[in-house]
Amino acid sequence: MKKNIIVTALIMLMAAWNVTAAWGEDGSRLWLRLDANSTPATVSGVKCMAMTELQTYWQGGPIVLKRQKGMAQDGYTIKSQGEATVITASGDAGLLYGAYHLLRLQEMGLPCQMLDIKEKPFYDLRILNHWDNPNGTVERGFAGKSIFWGDKDVNSEDFAASMKMYGRANASLGINGTVLNNVNAKPEALSTESLQKTKAIADLLRPYGIHVYLSINFASPIKVGGLKTADPLDKEVVRWWKDKVNEIYRMIPDFGGFLVKANSEGEPGPQDFGRTHADGANMLADVLKPHKGIVMWRAFVYAPQSPDRANQAYLEFMPLDGQFRDNVIIQIKNGPVDFQPREAYSPLFTAMQKTPMMVEFQITQEYLGAANHLVYLAPMWQEFFSFVKPASLKAMAGVANIGDDANWCGHHFAQANWYAFGRLAWNPALTSKVIAEEWVAQTLGLNPDTSLVTTPLPPAGGIGGGAVVSMMLDSREACVSYMMPLGIHHIFAGTHHYGPEPWYSPKGVRADWTPPYYHKADSIGLGFDRTLNGSANVKQYPDELCRVYNDINTCPENLLAWFHHVPWDHRMKSGRTFWDELCHKYDDGVRQTRRFLAVWDAMQPCVDAQRFEEVQRKLRIQVRDAEWWRDACLLYFQTFSHRPIPQDVEHPVHNLDEMMKFHIPITMYENPESGYTK
Amino acid sequence: MKKNIIVTALIMLMAAWNVTAAWGEDGSRLWLRLDANSTPATVSGVKCMAMTELQTYWQGGPIVLKRQKGMAQDGYTIKSQGEATVITASGDAGLLYGAYHLLRLQEMGLPCQMLDIKEKPFYDLRILNHWDNPNGTVERGFAGKSIFWGDKDVNSEDFAASMKMYGRANASLGINGTVLNNVNAKPEALSTESLQKTKAIADLLRPYGIHVYLSINFASPIKVGGLKTADPLDKEVVRWWKDKVNEIYRMIPDFGGFLVKANSEGEPGPQDFGRTHADGANMLADVLKPHKGIVMWRAFVYAPQSPDRANQAYLEFMPLDGQFRDNVIIQIKNGPVDFQPREAYSPLFTAMQKTPMMVEFQITQEYLGAANHLVYLAPMWQEFFSFVKPASLKAMAGVANIGDDANWCGHHFAQANWYAFGRLAWNPALTSKVIAEEWVAQTLGLNPDTSLVTTPLPPAGGIGGGAVVSMMLDSREACVSYMMPLGIHHIFAGTHHYGPEPWYSPKGVRADWTPPYYHKADSIGLGFDRTLNGSANVKQYPDELCRVYNDINTCPENLLAWFHHVPWDHRMKSGRTFWDELCHKYDDGVRQTRRFLAVWDAMQPCVDAQRFEEVQRKLRIQVRDAEWWRDACLLYFQTFSHRPIPQDVEHPVHNLDEMMKFHIPITMYENPESGYTK
Repeated sequence: MKKNIIVTALIMLMAAWNVTAAWGEDGSRLWLRLDANSTPATVSGVKCMAMTELQTYWQGGPIVLKRQKGMAQDGYTIKSQGEATVITASGDAGLLYGAYHLLRLQEMGLPCQMLDIKEKPFYDLRILNHWDNPNGTVERGFAGKSIFWGDKDVNSEDFAASMKMYGRANASLGINGTVLNNVNAKPEALSTESLQKTKAIADLLRPYGIHVYLSINFASPIKVGGLKTADPLDKEVVRWWKDKVNEIYRMIPDFGGFLVKANSEGEPGPQDFGRTHADGANMLADVLKPHKGIVMWRAFVYAPQSPDRANQAYLEFMPLDGQFRDNVIIQIKNGPVDFQPREAYSPLFTAMQKTPMMVEFQITQEYLGAANHLVYLAPMWQEFFSFVKPASLKAMAGVANIGDDANWCGHHFAQANWYAFGRLAWNPALTSKVIAEEWVAQTLGLNPDTSLVTTPLPPAGGIGGGAVVSMMLDSREACVSYMMPLGIHHIFAGTHHYGPEPWYSPKGVRADWTPPYYHKADSIGLGFDRTLNGSANVKQYPDELCRVYNDINTCPENLLAWFHHVPWDHRMKSGRTFWDELCHKYDDGVRQTRRFLAVWDAMQPCVDAQRFEEVQRKLRIQVRDAEWWRDACLLYFQTFSHRPIPQDVEHPVHNLDEMMKFHIPITMYENPESGYTK
Repeated sequence: MKKNIIVTALIMLMAAWNVTAAWGEDGSRLWLRLDANSTPATVSGVKCMAMTELQTYWQGGPIVLKRQKGMAQDGYTIKSQGEATVITASGDAGLLYGAYHLLRLQEMGLPCQMLDIKEKPFYDLRILNHWDNPNGTVERGFAGKSIFWGDKDVNSEDFAASMKMYGRANASLGINGTVLNNVNAKPEALSTESLQKTKAIADLLRPYGIHVYLSINFASPIKVGGLKTADPLDKEVVRWWKDKVNEIYRMIPDFGGFLVKANSEGEPGPQDFGRTHADGANMLADVLKPHKGIVMWRAFVYAPQSPDRANQAYLEFMPLDGQFRDNVIIQIKNGPVDFQPREAYSPLFTAMQKTPMMVEFQITQEYLGAANHLVYLAPMWQEFFSFVKPASLKAMAGVANIGDDANWCGHHFAQANWYAFGRLAWNPALTSKVIAEEWVAQTLGLNPDTSLVTTPLPPAGGIGGGAVVSMMLDSREACVSYMMPLGIHHIFAGTHHYGPEPWYSPKGVRADWTPPYYHKADSIGLGFDRTLNGSANVKQYPDELCRVYNDINTCPENLLAWFHHVPWDHRMKSGRTFWDELCHKYDDGVRQTRRFLAVWDAMQPCVDAQRFEEVQRKLRIQVRDAEWWRDACLLYFQTFSHRPIPQDVEHPVHNLDEMMKFHIPITMYENPESGYTK
């Protein structure tokens, strides 16, 4: 009774806070904004992390935790039995996932009685890839420094607290694996000192059902072991790997395995020794096999001399289809180029038939406005799954957007992408909308099902229930519109990939690292001819799709400049010319971002002051950046099209020469503080 | 015949240029883009500047120039007599004005046969005020350095050419006087060396009917003459002035007289010696009288201790009404504060009944975006004349926007304000539209009567004939909207008055030089209470207007915050609250500037490349500045109103704290190169 009074008081206090909206939150609690009980909830049965979490945060009736053999790995059931709720699973991980399921219902204000839930994950492996370097920087990291490396003391209380929250957040989604270091791996990742740190991290994450993995440098036998070669067929090399793997497993018995970026962007690989990707991957797989470890071998390869980078992975990997060990998974980026706002799916997915594959999504927004732009990525990943059947894959990897910023992800809404990745890895059939609603309800405390807005707003604005969810759902397409609509791709600034630099083409930089390689703008039109008359990339797709993509009149317009060199006067479905449509798309993107800002501003009475202001500030950057993108791209492409901006489109307000002189002085390890500033 | 062939060829060449729009013009020819004849036109009669101009530029039949006594000063008639055209006037100036009338018809493509024109100027004195300093800087000058002072060599050919063009431009409008130096006058303006330069300028301008005047420092007898006092009733002082004036007239027999800023903003004046404005003005008038010189005595006075600056001129000058000599004219700014985008008219104009008055308009855009914003000022001046009858004034003065930039005015469209000032001084009944059409036709070669656009444009945009003229006509109200709508005033950045700084209030700066003195924003509302319950400024207006202005429900909404402290929730005629209306007005201003940019962009095929690009660049600055104004003002005032920006208004994209930290590092003698740059 006393507990109920306190809980009620707490709830009333929270409600009061909600009314004044004067409190602040730094976002560090992510979507787990659970209030700890003053006295533990009644939980009986299996003693495990699920029990701890429920005792601390569950506010309902008694819970019983049960183990039961024969259930699916990581699956669980939740059943109401009178006053009590019974969670059943085959192991601790399943029980923990069940516990978070219950807590999610509680936080969303959904009914927690009469439950009859049965869940199991779609993929066995649901894994984050951290591109973290030993010195603590994070490649394409926009949320501060690494939570694992650099000057972090893995034995400190702060570190333990950080790992605990990281573990809880991942477990609440069902994420069960994490690669602790950058795919551009430093050899020292396998040094004994580094492995000891890895062990410490593994120990801290183990209670949350998370296995650790490492990216390895394929030349480690040379660079760490002092051998003369790293040839995967060399016996000394194999012995070195065996010894190293044994060392790892002695320290970390449940170590997950290796992630390998080989013969890609300058990283060493088996091709350096005249061997194939299969030779390299299989050697490591054989070494890991006795320990039940796996190899995730990346298919992200391309060559400077290639006339079409999008063709390369298929060319290298198709001949090897069926030659990989069963504990190798080929990890393929969703698109054949590189995490663009919109790409066609990578044709390897539908081509390879005899090789285990997993998709690599990029949660961190390398090409999507870093931690400044609100871009909810679930719709992009769902779009991928509309082409590639989830069941054709063995696992899902996501390049993490996590750093040591207070709010973990740099942008409060970037948390939703971590959340969505985890939820989709558990169940790729979940809709983007449902995931967004879950996240909004838990993270912002807004009820997306009824009305997000508690203050009356003029009907003209069209703001009402679910406005934030709608904004999230529209945000990826808006980003495509203001960055690179209609199939345009990779026209980013060099190095940091933040803003527009369609003109970027300095001497000495390899062509496939410059935008003109991709947009190929000229007086005739714009876009990369990948038809049978061009690079024939279309041929890597199933026949039916190949035909659709090959014909400019049947190719989806949102991929038009991906597959075609589109004439400026090509007639679009809207009746407009391609040039006019391009102008409209860019401008639509700008208008959308302005709408997002207005939607968010209307949330001020419902959201704590700190997160409101931090998100508002980011949205303002996004609006300004959208204008920058529109102006830079339209004015630059106009130097080829020689056509006017249509009258019913907002005209560029920046000057091309000034934009071309503008550079953001950051590396690929930082978030730009603001966008275009002149 | 040969001449006709050449002229035809030239016309064809011009037409060819028009089609390609690839030629460039620097704007130096202003609206006098006349093509010189290869052989002189046939002009007979009086030998004068009119003959020279017509011989050089007239492309029609023979002209006869006649003198005739008894005609109005500076007036003229133009009559067709068979093949010939006869211009008649009482003197050379009238003949020159008639010649330019004819050339204007020619340039606008209007009929030059069957003419029966009779013109005379509405005001005898049509005068520019140059705020030029001896060192060559121009106060509130945004078009480079002084064309008169500084390191200019008055004996050089360049200087003569510059004065010739200046003389022609003014004569083409009928401007017949110019004050060569700043009203904040340095004493050395009356040094013999400086007077010799003045004489050189006067000699160069005389052929164009332009008399020169000087601003004087009232303390000159002390500072130049070495006397102990400048008391206007002191005999030594009077003698000094007599000697100085005699010296001037010996050098410049047609010298015009003095312009005086006395006891204003730190300048010396008769009050320093216990005398009145009348004492000071009359002393100088008596000294000038024998030479037919005049005194223009400014009424721009205010005091730091005054609770309402707008009251001050009335308080100081009304008691002196009727005490001024008949060769004194009191020069009064159009509004009682200081050249704001919109002010109520200065109540002195309707109050003083026995004193000759002239209005001082500011052609240079001190408070209207300097030489970066396109703001056509004729509508503002016409608005003034809707309150103050032109016939109640003796003359019109305009503070010049002229400097040594190639295009004279910094912004090509700023030339239109010089043009409009001259035309209105000749005939204040001319409409803003007619003046804009004249200027557009002559300066840009566009035909505003038929269609400005030679290329087909989508009807959606609504662009067609007269679009540039429409843009000009809308531009002043747009500027009011994005800078300070609904009667708000003087919320400019300190010193340079370019951008918004409604918060500007540094310690030690007198209150009436800071925006909070004027906007008085608080939790209740916004605006300066000048009603009978407030500063009672309304009482300085005629009874009927006083009643209208005094009542918040009858006060024109465009002056609401000028006369009232308007509650945020005050219901406006639109049905919106005052706060919501304010938001809409600011946003309307931004949208208007974007529309101007689109209108101008559509002109690209019709305008030479140089002027097109220069104007486009300025319009882009204007759009960005308009957003800056909107965001800075709305976000700052929102800290008082505590009300949301309406949903159907575009929301601020800048952050208040960043805008408050931003400063443009320029003085009051420069044009800011660009606007807000974060």
